[in-house]
Amino acid sequence: MRLIRELRGLLKHGRALGTINLFSSKSQIAEEVAKLLDLKAQQAPAEDAAANQKFTLKTPKGTRDYSPEQMALRLNVFNKIISVFKKHGAETIDTPVFELKEVLTGKYGEDSKLIYDLKDQGGEILSLRYDLTVPFARYLAMNKISNIKRYHIAKVYRRDNPSISRGRYREFYQCDFDIAGTYDPMIPDAECIKIIAEILDVMQVTPFVVKVNHRLLLDGMFEACGVPKSNFRAICSAVDKLDKSPWEEVKKEMVEEKGLSEDVADKIGNYVKLNGQLELVDKLLLDENLSKNKCAVEGLESIKLLLKYCEIFDISNKVSFDLSLARGLDYYTGVIYEAVLLGDDIAVGSVAGGGRYDNLVGMFDGKNKQVPCVGVSIGVERLFAVMEQRLQAANRKTRTTEVDVYVCTAQKNLVEERLKLCNELWDNEFKVEFSYKKNPKLLAQLQYCEENSIPYALILGESEVKSGIVKLRNVTTREELEVKRGNLAEVLRQKLGELNCNGTVPT
Amino acid sequence: MRLIRELRGLLKHGRALGTINLFSSKSQIAEEVAKLLDLKAQQAPAEDAAANQKFTLKTPKGTRDYSPEQMALRLNVFNKIISVFKKHGAETIDTPVFELKEVLTGKYGEDSKLIYDLKDQGGEILSLRYDLTVPFARYLAMNKISNIKRYHIAKVYRRDNPSISRGRYREFYQCDFDIAGTYDPMIPDAECIKIIAEILDVMQVTPFVVKVNHRLLLDGMFEACGVPKSNFRAICSAVDKLDKSPWEEVKKEMVEEKGLSEDVADKIGNYVKLNGQLELVDKLLLDENLSKNKCAVEGLESIKLLLKYCEIFDISNKVSFDLSLARGLDYYTGVIYEAVLLGDDIAVGSVAGGGRYDNLVGMFDGKNKQVPCVGVSIGVERLFAVMEQRLQAANRKTRTTEVDVYVCTAQKNLVEERLKLCNELWDNEFKVEFSYKKNPKLLAQLQYCEENSIPYALILGESEVKSGIVKLRNVTTREELEVKRGNLAEVLRQKLGELNCNGTVPT
Repeated sequence: MRLIRELRGLLKHGRALGTINLFSSKSQIAEEVAKLLDLKAQQAPAEDAAANQKFTLKTPKGTRDYSPEQMALRLNVFNKIISVFKKHGAETIDTPVFELKEVLTGKYGEDSKLIYDLKDQGGEILSLRYDLTVPFARYLAMNKISNIKRYHIAKVYRRDNPSISRGRYREFYQCDFDIAGTYDPMIPDAECIKIIAEILDVMQVTPFVVKVNHRLLLDGMFEACGVPKSNFRAICSAVDKLDKSPWEEVKKEMVEEKGLSEDVADKIGNYVKLNGQLELVDKLLLDENLSKNKCAVEGLESIKLLLKYCEIFDISNKVSFDLSLARGLDYYTGVIYEAVLLGDDIAVGSVAGGGRYDNLVGMFDGKNKQVPCVGVSIGVERLFAVMEQRLQAANRKTRTTEVDVYVCTAQKNLVEERLKLCNELWDNEFKVEFSYKKNPKLLAQLQYCEENSIPYALILGESEVKSGIVKLRNVTTREELEVKRGNLAEVLRQKLGELNCNGTVPT
Repeated sequence: MRLIRELRGLLKHGRALGTINLFSSKSQIAEEVAKLLDLKAQQAPAEDAAANQKFTLKTPKGTRDYSPEQMALRLNVFNKIISVFKKHGAETIDTPVFELKEVLTGKYGEDSKLIYDLKDQGGEILSLRYDLTVPFARYLAMNKISNIKRYHIAKVYRRDNPSISRGRYREFYQCDFDIAGTYDPMIPDAECIKIIAEILDVMQVTPFVVKVNHRLLLDGMFEACGVPKSNFRAICSAVDKLDKSPWEEVKKEMVEEKGLSEDVADKIGNYVKLNGQLELVDKLLLDENLSKNKCAVEGLESIKLLLKYCEIFDISNKVSFDLSLARGLDYYTGVIYEAVLLGDDIAVGSVAGGGRYDNLVGMFDGKNKQVPCVGVSIGVERLFAVMEQRLQAANRKTRTTEVDVYVCTAQKNLVEERLKLCNELWDNEFKVEFSYKKNPKLLAQLQYCEENSIPYALILGESEVKSGIVKLRNVTTREELEVKRGNLAEVLRQKLGELNCNGTVPT
């Protein structure tokens, strides 16, 4: 080790001075160092293993492991969401966890600084995906796909300083559904909102409201209020803070940081406090300022059509046209929406959001060919948090396996008989566990069943083996029944069927 | 931009000289540079967006997107594998895609150079996971878990130069099942082999053989043949190549690269060509050299017990004790196994493998507390490749959605009626699609059904709307039936049930 350090020092020194005395050339030194490093690499495992015990054992900042209980809950949530996506005919795709850095550059505005970069190890410059929308747009452009309806559930990465206590992480799941294609106005957009409503219904996180707004209306409103065009995005991002901050603070930001006149800010203030249904659209279509603005009128007409479709989809009572909704991301071009939970006990805020982005795919196409898109992202991490809180409150345990039956023994030296019985049951497609100890205690085995909510235990003793029977025990009621081996599969299937019907099998 | 470069140059220069003339202090310069960089960041999106159209659109080297067809196939394979894991009582966990670099260091021997590192962006030094086993061991040690049976399906990352034509990638799925805990010998080990056999059976990739061997037997054999202890790993890794290279080449590597005498190599050669069943174990237990070696005898006795359990599990005919099996990874300590497909048409080789690693968890524990583990990794990427080849050969299309019925119209101006009907069907839990065009052509709608294997179409016209009926069309047979709206859900449920029973719905 010391030799390597010396050689490295020498190499540095030689470089700095531009002259080398000990070896005849830099390349020769480099070669020697490489050899020694190779040697070191070969010895590394043992050395490093010893070193390992010194560092703190943890997952990287802002990340976490998911325990079996958490995974069971998550898979349950995903399955419910996926079944809604499938009801609406969605396919699924997957993309790599990293992209060429260039793919992500310039898509996220100020947030680009939160992108995780990979180290340049020779080759391409890569970054971890920041969301699933930009990779989706890249996928469409790269494969020249002009229409698709797909969902994508995967982890994304943001080097934020998240408040983990509030359920925010640097690695987290996104759960997206998007419709790409050139279609008639507001039809796919309305289906996206329908999907949000169905998912929140099936997750039983009611009451909720889906706020809707339109980028064109926002732009038109800004224009009508006298905001300079160059300032639209900055003012939009100020409006976006209205869900967390009172108007006075947002106004202060507009005036003091973003240079609006107080008068212009107040005009905006009068609009962004409005929310309602179709009647509000009609009222604004008659508004003195907005009715003269082409963008605003186009936005309002779009919202009107969207609300009509929402009525047909029977979700009007869950949708609110809200002029304060802005959404941060740069790429939205049309309708935007966001679902918020209204229960006062759970302060999770937004649980789904999305909108129309008609220009993103074109950014990846050499000929700037556009593929209009509209989509929704379900805030699954927040839904997980709600579900976890509920489980805790109900003091209910999540079952993490689906084992039907546990093969036990009351006596010693029956390991082979137990394995044989397990094998018979596996061959009959039962879900079976048994103790990996050669001579386990019966009490320990039965306790295992209770702790893991396994509904049935099969108990084998020498006499049972001899007479070709087995004891079937209902773990909850402790009732026992002797069953002939030949009938076991049938009896067990029947018993499990009964449990499922009664709903007494924990799920 | 030029100013930034100049300032940077100046800063560098100032540092190098140790004196600064233009500004009074280094910190002042740094401040100015920071301001300019901020300015640049704010301008970046627009600049970069324009640049985007110039680069080649691709996924990073060695990675790929998964299309809906590929995903449908993959999810199908995963579901089959997961149901086998669940039959054996496994839970599932998840871990972050990256780990502290220290966690991975020293676990993979020479392959450590293939680890993807993240860029140091301030904070922790991170690497992408290389497999699921080391994160699993870290998870156990960190959470002080002394027994668990878990599966984990996730992507792992290796900066290899993979032959993509042979289905190898830098980002690929691993699919692991492991049993951690202190148990009696060979019981969980045998269950792992049973699981491999069940999975390959359910995937219908027969015939296959699961080769088994034991690290202690390998070490004992090397010792008995006269290999110096310090050379065990190197010789083991040479033996590992026997699945791809003939003995003569491996021998050459042993003698010429790894310094064995020809005599010693030949002795090894005589052993590694052996494979068989229990009778081979008994023969080797009487072998003059091996019977004197403690390690070898212990390994042989273990294999004997394992083969006995395999017999009980009814998989003897699929298991072969094979002295040439070595497996590359450093962390194995006991039984090792590997499943190989035998079909001569598909040259995929190993499709599953694993073994016992009793010392890995202890490497993460401050007090070196061990948690013995045994596990299996299913080579899902190879299974995917086999399935894809089969689908191609059979010229069969994979269905990527599960849509039951498509709501069509034969006339114009019925978009609202279609949405209404869709909504009724969604509320009744049917999977429904419809055209997003306001006035689509009937032929186009029916073609869509055929292309996407949607079994039923519902056709609405003005007269149907008026009389409260709808035309139900079987897309395959083209039979049509008029159904009252009030009875629609019931009739449709029945029709779909019949299709499922007949197995005529493509899945």
